[in-house]
Amino acid sequence: MQLDSIFDDDRPKDECGVFGIFGHRSASELAYLGLRALQHRGQESAGIVASQGQTFSYHRGMGLVTEVFNDMDILAQLEGHLAIGHNRYSTAGSSNLENAQPLVRQYSRGPLAIAHNGNLVNAYQIRTDLEKTGSIFNGTSDTEVIAHLIARSQQLLLEDRIIDTLQKLQGAYSLVFMGKSIMIGARDPNGFRPLWLGRLGDAYILASETCAFDVTQATPIREIEPGEMVVITSTSETPKSFRVGVQPDNLSQCIFEYIYLARPDSIVFNNLANQPRREFGRQLAREHPVEADIVIPVPDSATIATLGFSEESETPFEFGLYRNPYVGRTFMHPSQEVRDLMVRIKLNPIENVLKGKRVVVVDDSIMRGTNSRKIVSLVRQGGATEVHFRVSSPPNCYPCFYGVDTPTRKELIASSWTIDEICKYIGADSLGYLSIEGMLNCVVSPKDFCTACFDGKYPVEFSGQPTKQLPIEFDVKLL
Amino acid sequence: MQLDSIFDDDRPKDECGVFGIFGHRSASELAYLGLRALQHRGQESAGIVASQGQTFSYHRGMGLVTEVFNDMDILAQLEGHLAIGHNRYSTAGSSNLENAQPLVRQYSRGPLAIAHNGNLVNAYQIRTDLEKTGSIFNGTSDTEVIAHLIARSQQLLLEDRIIDTLQKLQGAYSLVFMGKSIMIGARDPNGFRPLWLGRLGDAYILASETCAFDVTQATPIREIEPGEMVVITSTSETPKSFRVGVQPDNLSQCIFEYIYLARPDSIVFNNLANQPRREFGRQLAREHPVEADIVIPVPDSATIATLGFSEESETPFEFGLYRNPYVGRTFMHPSQEVRDLMVRIKLNPIENVLKGKRVVVVDDSIMRGTNSRKIVSLVRQGGATEVHFRVSSPPNCYPCFYGVDTPTRKELIASSWTIDEICKYIGADSLGYLSIEGMLNCVVSPKDFCTACFDGKYPVEFSGQPTKQLPIEFDVKLL
Amino acid sequence: MQLDSIFDDDRPKDECGVFGIFGHRSASELAYLGLRALQHRGQESAGIVASQGQTFSYHRGMGLVTEVFNDMDILAQLEGHLAIGHNRYSTAGSSNLENAQPLVRQYSRGPLAIAHNGNLVNAYQIRTDLEKTGSIFNGTSDTEVIAHLIARSQQLLLEDRIIDTLQKLQGAYSLVFMGKSIMIGARDPNGFRPLWLGRLGDAYILASETCAFDVTQATPIREIEPGEMVVITSTSETPKSFRVGVQPDNLSQCIFEYIYLARPDSIVFNNLANQPRREFGRQLAREHPVEADIVIPVPDSATIATLGFSEESETPFEFGLYRNPYVGRTFMHPSQEVRDLMVRIKLNPIENVLKGKRVVVVDDSIMRGTNSRKIVSLVRQGGATEVHFRVSSPPNCYPCFYGVDTPTRKELIASSWTIDEICKYIGADSLGYLSIEGMLNCVVSPKDFCTACFDGKYPVEFSGQPTKQLPIEFDVKLL
Amino acid sequence: MQLDSIFDDDRPKDECGVFGIFGHRSASELAYLGLRALQHRGQESAGIVASQGQTFSYHRGMGLVTEVFNDMDILAQLEGHLAIGHNRYSTAGSSNLENAQPLVRQYSRGPLAIAHNGNLVNAYQIRTDLEKTGSIFNGTSDTEVIAHLIARSQQLLLEDRIIDTLQKLQGAYSLVFMGKSIMIGARDPNGFRPLWLGRLGDAYILASETCAFDVTQATPIREIEPGEMVVITSTSETPKSFRVGVQPDNLSQCIFEYIYLARPDSIVFNNLANQPRREFGRQLAREHPVEADIVIPVPDSATIATLGFSEESETPFEFGLYRNPYVGRTFMHPSQEVRDLMVRIKLNPIENVLKGKRVVVVDDSIMRGTNSRKIVSLVRQGGATEVHFRVSSPPNCYPCFYGVDTPTRKELIASSWTIDEICKYIGADSLGYLSIEGMLNCVVSPKDFCTACFDGKYPVEFSGQPTKQLPIEFDVKLL
Repeated sequence: MQLDSIFDDDRPKDECGVFGIFGHRSASELAYLGLRALQHRGQESAGIVASQGQTFSYHRGMGLVTEVFNDMDILAQLEGHLAIGHNRYSTAGSSNLENAQPLVRQYSRGPLAIAHNGNLVNAYQIRTDLEKTGSIFNGTSDTEVIAHLIARSQQLLLEDRIIDTLQKLQGAYSLVFMGKSIMIGARDPNGFRPLWLGRLGDAYILASETCAFDVTQATPIREIEPGEMVVITSTSETPKSFRVGVQPDNLSQCIFEYIYLARPDSIVFNNLANQPRREFGRQLAREHPVEADIVIPVPDSATIATLGFSEESETPFEFGLYRNPYVGRTFMHPSQEVRDLMVRIKLNPIENVLKGKRVVVVDDSIMRGTNSRKIVSLVRQGGATEVHFRVSSPPNCYPCFYGVDTPTRKELIASSWTIDEICKYIGADSLGYLSIEGMLNCVVSPKDFCTACFDGKYPVEFSGQPTKQLPIEFDVKLL
Repeated sequence: MQLDSIFDDDRPKDECGVFGIFGHRSASELAYLGLRALQHRGQESAGIVASQGQTFSYHRGMGLVTEVFNDMDILAQLEGHLAIGHNRYSTAGSSNLENAQPLVRQYSRGPLAIAHNGNLVNAYQIRTDLEKTGSIFNGTSDTEVIAHLIARSQQLLLEDRIIDTLQKLQGAYSLVFMGKSIMIGARDPNGFRPLWLGRLGDAYILASETCAFDVTQATPIREIEPGEMVVITSTSETPKSFRVGVQPDNLSQCIFEYIYLARPDSIVFNNLANQPRREFGRQLAREHPVEADIVIPVPDSATIATLGFSEESETPFEFGLYRNPYVGRTFMHPSQEVRDLMVRIKLNPIENVLKGKRVVVVDDSIMRGTNSRKIVSLVRQGGATEVHFRVSSPPNCYPCFYGVDTPTRKELIASSWTIDEICKYIGADSLGYLSIEGMLNCVVSPKDFCTACFDGKYPVEFSGQPTKQLPIEFDVKLL
Repeated sequence: MQLDSIFDDDRPKDECGVFGIFGHRSASELAYLGLRALQHRGQESAGIVASQGQTFSYHRGMGLVTEVFNDMDILAQLEGHLAIGHNRYSTAGSSNLENAQPLVRQYSRGPLAIAHNGNLVNAYQIRTDLEKTGSIFNGTSDTEVIAHLIARSQQLLLEDRIIDTLQKLQGAYSLVFMGKSIMIGARDPNGFRPLWLGRLGDAYILASETCAFDVTQATPIREIEPGEMVVITSTSETPKSFRVGVQPDNLSQCIFEYIYLARPDSIVFNNLANQPRREFGRQLAREHPVEADIVIPVPDSATIATLGFSEESETPFEFGLYRNPYVGRTFMHPSQEVRDLMVRIKLNPIENVLKGKRVVVVDDSIMRGTNSRKIVSLVRQGGATEVHFRVSSPPNCYPCFYGVDTPTRKELIASSWTIDEICKYIGADSLGYLSIEGMLNCVVSPKDFCTACFDGKYPVEFSGQPTKQLPIEFDVKLL
Repeated sequence: MQLDSIFDDDRPKDECGVFGIFGHRSASELAYLGLRALQHRGQESAGIVASQGQTFSYHRGMGLVTEVFNDMDILAQLEGHLAIGHNRYSTAGSSNLENAQPLVRQYSRGPLAIAHNGNLVNAYQIRTDLEKTGSIFNGTSDTEVIAHLIARSQQLLLEDRIIDTLQKLQGAYSLVFMGKSIMIGARDPNGFRPLWLGRLGDAYILASETCAFDVTQATPIREIEPGEMVVITSTSETPKSFRVGVQPDNLSQCIFEYIYLARPDSIVFNNLANQPRREFGRQLAREHPVEADIVIPVPDSATIATLGFSEESETPFEFGLYRNPYVGRTFMHPSQEVRDLMVRIKLNPIENVLKGKRVVVVDDSIMRGTNSRKIVSLVRQGGATEVHFRVSSPPNCYPCFYGVDTPTRKELIASSWTIDEICKYIGADSLGYLSIEGMLNCVVSPKDFCTACFDGKYPVEFSGQPTKQLPIEFDVKLL
């Protein structure tokens, strides 16, 4: 059991970070640094595969990047000028090494590696079709079907096989592929997930967010466009660009990247995430003003929206909850008595900030509500006379099927309860969510964002019930 | 090599956190929680020893509390109603398992465990005397001499032996002792380090800071007084209190606990650390005002002083540097090329906050100046037009010998350079330190604080050159 | 580096042991015991997969069975009444976790596991064909093609799919398959490798050798016949038997199982291995008599043949070389000086046995000759006046392509050197090998044994150069 | 639980192997090799400490030598020309890291390391006296009192302090001491345990048995004499020798070294162990002849005595029980059902050897009898018509207090049962033990051997009940 997750299990989770570098003699070391910068996008497993032109070297494992690459020699053995890496977060059911990425397979043209951020909505159907004609699978990841489609393509070149393949995929994908001496990046036509192209000397880099460029002091070039595929080889000095798939009228960029997922210092969807995140806080203050003495964030993710709220409302910004920075897994089976005692292992109220104050608490989202309820209770234990809860995003009523791990519809408190009921449940004196319109007013080109998790308008249709995980009936549990 | 320490090696380090609990059936689990709350006081090693009245069970190891207790069964095997624990930070030379605490030994009256926060200034002299009459030692920790003195005492009872012992010790100590069915806490007469007494149901708890009570929802009773020893047994319902040693005219409480060491939500020296820490920021603003657009903290430790600075100066508080929360050890031997690239693995400037702004950067201290120099450079890379560095403590000119790990005098930049020279070295447009007087004005009973690291007035004298580590000539390196 | 292998690298290696059990509530525990009994057939990796009817649980790893299953909980988590296991030895190039078995994949009908002992001579051709039509591969094991062929079969039932598949395979295979609630065993028509059927209460067991029955006190029923497939389910009380493939005129049972590979207490090819092994020693004494004082084995594998030699020649049997039973991997990079010193880490001469004696040394085979040379030198260092080397098998001139790991033709000393040259190289006073005819006289039905490694008459033809490892051009190295 | 010990728990265990080397640049590597050769003397823990003249480097751990030194870098970090090492076996109660050796402490003259084979009979009394005057202890090993006595000595030089100390010790000890640049060996006046001096180039080596010289190709010089202390430094070209303690009329060399403990290829007590061991078998055949078809050893330890029995009785020597060479710890909690099944995990009868035969089984000792009972049953399961059990040592009626781990008197079957009763219990058709007189006739200078475990005549007296482990009342359990 991971007791430390007490305060984290009510937050949406990104499913992956991807990174690739072509043309640098320290490719795997830079991939390691890039993955560390992208660690917030996935903490369940990590992996890097490198190529020196003929042979791939590969290492992956469960845990943080620093835990997986915990031996001095591993990076040194990942030789070559070309490397791609992946951080994964996934749902519990298929949390095992078989699903860790990059996915590496051998097909008729040699070895192939894939790093995938996103979620395909037609993976189950493709898999079933593939199995009917004799394909075999190792795990339950939707990425494995991509490898099969590439291998089944009748095209000669990897780039053409990938074009064939992308045309069959529906849903969200930002992909980095690696062949013996080729790196390819691709983004779905809706542009759900970010993917950036950068440069470091003669080398090209692909990464989910620009923070991965900063850590290596690479220069961002541009965001890969929705529906674009770029091919990087040593024979062509600049990446070749291809357009794949039918471009929809509007894009479906994930607005949760701005609300919570992306690092504030990263550019995604051509905008520094810090900027809309702060605007959400300002707009929230305008929509749900409250007479209060201080405004405090739920640390650390809501800090920026809280600064915006403070600025707009002229309510003093304070830290009322201390967050223990030493995160880690807990290895104990606590008695119920101890379990009840230990709620403050991560957060603790600071009395002289809260005592006797009317407090606004800002968080970036409410999923099940259990976390918010604990927060409100902690703030009251700290002596607050009033607790007003403000959320810098709209009510989450629908699950995401495009690459963010959210609770099921049934578990999402806002899908069945009114604002008043939620307010009562979490024990706050008042509760205010940012409106969908207000939120969209804060971003550039609002029509190009997906808001399905708030309004249920899923931009890519699916037949039957889509799933975040393939509904494979007879699973294999890897110990 | 731990590349992650790039930005941390210029900060003073507390040497230990101590915790003890008597009279709870989940004693070792609660000790574990307490140590997690006190993790900021020492990350090098951790240990817990428990007693069920006859036998001690003991586990310790190198690393964080969650790393040392990383097996489900360990805590379950640490049986008994009595347990003490320890987090250690120490200088590199003796960073090994032999010096990890609690120290456990057997003497004529049975087993004995000791957890120590502080540093004895006469440990080397006592050790030399003990060795002359035949004592043998395992490691280089000053705590080992305490165990020897207790064993050598002619008194019958442990408490009397400890009284004998404490009278021979000079320097800083907050100690928790454990016998078969007795727990004893003691604090040196100068009161250098904090030590609190609390209660959880029928159980008594001793801990360095009150945050360790919060995590277990225990109730703070009072701070152990300087020169006080408390004895907790099952035969006496309330702890028995003894006064040991000659009380000095003034106490020497460590003001660095307020500047940086203690958690802001902890009470130490009868005051919530958050309060003076914020006052330091306000006073700093009064002493060194500057016309600027924003004020940003060096995250995370300077955040509270920065809030004080912002409030007093009416300069808007902002986050201009993103701090990667995924700390960890780096296992690679990077090439120089990669090493130069990776400076931003922990901190990254946020451009839309800094660009075109006149920025005040607040940090809590400057030791060698190397870190500050990197910070200023990062802020300029983020686009700041002016960078004004402000330090919420006075210039650190002298090393500490009372339990805080600081650089040597030679390494302390302020010991030999002027403010202007330091300002030039770190590359700031201006530099201002808090004055000693200003700092002392922010705390209750200023005469009762040690300021030796700023003014060299060491409250407990020592013959010869004191050391943070015993100058044992022929050391043993444990692999 | 594994220094301990100094004396082992000149011995042929079996490539695998297989085990399966259907119908026992402690299936995975019994598989564990069975694999321990079969440990001599493969020490590189081990794995067990269990099924409770729907889901497979799976664990595998590099190392000995006791090293891979080194956690109390693993076996408990391998739930179900059905389990199969595998010990692997393989050539260095593909010694990695991806090739460890049982191989587990999911196909259209659910999960499938395969444990394989043997080597297919047409695996590369099948793989190339499969890749051409879009199959993807994880590793380089020939077993993976079997999984693909099963998945590609148009039959409905697993047993029918396997029949389809077996008809395409050429070479050596003793296979155990597992579906959700079915276990299937199969042996190639030539009968290269052994495979036994046994019973424990209501449960059926399949195992490479009968020693795996003894450890679980199961009863041997009979050897699976060459070209036979048995299907074990809960719907049929007794295994159903099928005949697959064209039966050749003569079988090709591996005579090396009798020379060295099988445990002496195991029945393989319907005969206790101990019996022919001892006969080889007797026959060797008849073919190459020598006037000597004692005869000693190269411990431990040649002991039984040596007893036969002693008995027939009436030369006293002695132990002249002590073998250190604490085998293990060596983790050091010794200097050349130390490396030269340490030749006796495994074997040491016993002086009062050897001194002044004319000694016959019996070994079971000579591959490169390097090992024999060291042995002769050790015996001389022990004081022997004469050293006569006798080999209880014929000269090894050809590599095996049917599941035994042997050196290449070039490395086999007997392929290019005369007996006299070999004798001189190893430093013996005389050298005698068992003749092919003599060897075959010791077994029942000599025409049903493969002697290709001695005479190059490969019973199953192959086009092009066969390989023990698939010649995959662009490999993936798993770290 | 270690299921593999099923067949081993009824055998006496040596308590330690010691090794030291002075004057070789690869000292720690050679110590590693020496410990591997001495692995049979202790498998519980291993350790090596090295010195380059000033600082000791030290590594120890639980497990076999290859398990403790399982990292390439450890030996490289154990720098210096001087190193001592230790293999330990000890009783369960104090089986923990604190008691692992070499023991390393610092005293007034610097660091000191001790490796000890043997058992002091007055350790508890010395410890109690030391504790009364203030000594503190880490563990429960009797070796710790030796370190204290050395530290308490008023002599200046280490050799003189050791002379002081040895005069206070009673019981069995072969000791190797290490100071900064000095190595000292010592053996108790009774000569209970062996200790050899050897030479490798300019370096001197001390080791429990000569097999440790063979592995490093060092030359044996001579056995350290009972009551002798040798001092090896760089200032004196040859070791200086001292005589310590009162020499008894007769020595008390442990005859169990010849029966079972020492390696057959080692010289101990100036005789190759192989020689008396074989004589015991011959003598046994003379004392207890039996009409039989074959004689088989309990593998592997009884093999040599069995050869002697075979030779003398002219009964053919055979291997009737196969011993699985893959030893290892078992990590499972087997159900009772499985436990009952798995008795053959280590030994298995070979049917064509045993079937229909009258079999003599030779073992080297019977402690509790449980093991012998299983052996007889296995031999009968193999088809033997008669099973005659012969033991190549006299009935074990008394525990050893001089360094061999034996069961308590109550557990020793021969202490309370007659030969007939034991024969009936183990299920044999007849049972014969070697007589004490017969045994002594096989060795040189019979009066110089201890036979206390057979006749209860303990050569070194002790007051009160001696113990193999110090009866420390309040122990510390290290997790």
